[in-house]
Amino acid sequence: MDFNKAALQMHKENAGKVGIHSRVQVTTRDQLSTAYTPGVAEPCRAIVKDPADVYTYTCKGRMVAVVSNGTAVLGLGDIGPEAALPVMEGKAVLFKEFAGVDAFPVCINARTVEEVVAVCKALAPTFGGINLEDIKCPECFEIEEILERELDIPVFHDDQHGTAIVVTAALINALRVVGKPMADARIVLNGPGAAGTAIIKMLMNAGARDIVAVDENGILYDGSVHTEPHKIWLGKHTNPRQVKGGLAEAIRDADVFIGVSRPGCLTTELCTTMAKDAIVFAMANPTPEIMPDEAKAGGVRIVATGRSDFANQVNNVLCFPGLFKGALSVRARDINPAMKVAAAYAIADLVTDEERSEEYIIPGAFDPRVAEAVAEAVAKAARETGVAGI
Amino acid sequence: MDFNKAALQMHKENAGKVGIHSRVQVTTRDQLSTAYTPGVAEPCRAIVKDPADVYTYTCKGRMVAVVSNGTAVLGLGDIGPEAALPVMEGKAVLFKEFAGVDAFPVCINARTVEEVVAVCKALAPTFGGINLEDIKCPECFEIEEILERELDIPVFHDDQHGTAIVVTAALINALRVVGKPMADARIVLNGPGAAGTAIIKMLMNAGARDIVAVDENGILYDGSVHTEPHKIWLGKHTNPRQVKGGLAEAIRDADVFIGVSRPGCLTTELCTTMAKDAIVFAMANPTPEIMPDEAKAGGVRIVATGRSDFANQVNNVLCFPGLFKGALSVRARDINPAMKVAAAYAIADLVTDEERSEEYIIPGAFDPRVAEAVAEAVAKAARETGVAGI
Repeated sequence: MDFNKAALQMHKENAGKVGIHSRVQVTTRDQLSTAYTPGVAEPCRAIVKDPADVYTYTCKGRMVAVVSNGTAVLGLGDIGPEAALPVMEGKAVLFKEFAGVDAFPVCINARTVEEVVAVCKALAPTFGGINLEDIKCPECFEIEEILERELDIPVFHDDQHGTAIVVTAALINALRVVGKPMADARIVLNGPGAAGTAIIKMLMNAGARDIVAVDENGILYDGSVHTEPHKIWLGKHTNPRQVKGGLAEAIRDADVFIGVSRPGCLTTELCTTMAKDAIVFAMANPTPEIMPDEAKAGGVRIVATGRSDFANQVNNVLCFPGLFKGALSVRARDINPAMKVAAAYAIADLVTDEERSEEYIIPGAFDPRVAEAVAEAVAKAARETGVAGI
Repeated sequence: MDFNKAALQMHKENAGKVGIHSRVQVTTRDQLSTAYTPGVAEPCRAIVKDPADVYTYTCKGRMVAVVSNGTAVLGLGDIGPEAALPVMEGKAVLFKEFAGVDAFPVCINARTVEEVVAVCKALAPTFGGINLEDIKCPECFEIEEILERELDIPVFHDDQHGTAIVVTAALINALRVVGKPMADARIVLNGPGAAGTAIIKMLMNAGARDIVAVDENGILYDGSVHTEPHKIWLGKHTNPRQVKGGLAEAIRDADVFIGVSRPGCLTTELCTTMAKDAIVFAMANPTPEIMPDEAKAGGVRIVATGRSDFANQVNNVLCFPGLFKGALSVRARDINPAMKVAAAYAIADLVTDEERSEEYIIPGAFDPRVAEAVAEAVAKAARETGVAGI
């Protein structure tokens, strides 16, 4: 199927993908007087009296903003807010179709950290949560950090944490298949950008202790050549054995390779240097770091990619719809590490002991149980960690 | 019917009034690959290549932002963005129900002119038009003026211009009933705030020449005590006979009284001093400047109010849904005076010569012809004045 052609046609026929619908009928004078003036003044007065009532009488508690400035879209790069709109509409569609969550695409003319933060803070009264999307690194780190601190609604950069949660879910099951504990696994992360850094932090929260990050300038360690703040942080907090060199040195005897990097950078030959029962997550999109058959030719036991045409697809849609559904359901003020780990285990645990295998470490994107399982786990974790509003 | 109680129940049951719906189905892998990655990249690339394609492939061309900072809500005043959300949701509902226009409520934390302008400019890529709502005076003037100048999508402050258009429509027909031309009518405008000022300018665009504005400090004239910039402007550009004094002096021999002021400020006695076949638009809400029977007792021939329980309801819903529908249909860059006058005549002309009477100068809020008639007239005027994009 030619998805490019089909996509142009679908987008044109529908003039985009999301619409607004009214949840109330307004065909009589009484209905008009109830949905609008004079009746509408009464819920307004109720919210003035008790600000929490905005969740009772308005769409806020159901509504997620999918915010992007279009500076780092998919494989397209810095294409700006207008050109990013099809992606954000698509995300809003997935929120609705996979979890029944109302989400609205908000593509903004705002490039600096300060500008993006100011717009999101201004928009906060209307939304129950903010899903940041396709904002370039390193700005995305600071934007999320400031918004998480200063807003009382959850803010979640899906490119970072959605990816991290689904990778963690897949890795939990892959390690179960090969019988290695997370705490002992030697893990190589190739491409410590926004997603890569979030994956590392998430795996550390899930118990990983031996992670080595590599980029095009070599392995990150305490004192390596890297100058970006998040890489300096990683150099200090990962790589406990202080391995030095490049990808070849990092991957030798590794149990796990996780690539969020570039097509073709992993070879069959390099795979042969990994530990027994090796796991490779090759998630460059659309062409992975190594094709599954090439990895297996190098002795790798389990391979996952971002693609739907191979087994074990690491797909963010497994996480964000249910995650926000759960967070909204308890009016969570935040999406904290415990909620993220809970989401990862909820996804992983849908694959039973009997089903789990080299070719099935993660549920399919259309598994109808996923969103609800994630939502329940996230809501429970929010309550248990004290960030739930109700 | 107790609208307050009914409104609380309606808003609570539905958790607000607007929702998001997906215009495409995503239940198969192919649909997912078309609505989202990898297919979605193709419309993105098309927009990069030709920015106008954002209207072809996204929701932008269908989508209106209903923006408020909640500083001047209905009769409630400065209640802030959260408490204003029921009103903006209501407005979005009316856009949809009356004209099929997708509108999204955007309640923002932004108080100064600069802040509101910055947020609207940042949001512009996502929307085909901006409906400003319930923003206090005088900030609303400057906000609209800057946005009109700096954005290439239409920006329309409904409290000002929506009211002005519907008042003009009603006055066109009222003057037809009494057989007085607009150019000769002596018109008194009581309450020259945001709406009042827009009404005056609109009536001038529609041919009125003798308008006297009055506020609680008296009649506005060139050199009067008024210090607000818009009132100084009005003093210089209205009141050609340089009438001085208060409401009593203004209304003597007047053909038309238009009140956007306060309950009870007009009396039967004052009405008796008006010209023969006088017209009174008493639009203070919910209690008018004078009740219709009291005005008629003073010899007034035609009375209009903002209320649905009397004849001749001046209701903004007659204008904004169709106005935006028409503007969006031709991708208008602006909503200019010609488009506003066209909208007023479109509304007025739905009342035929045979139907027109003292009790029927304006179509009812639910007249199903209104939105389409307004949309067609506005689109035509946009094309003829060169502000249409297609």
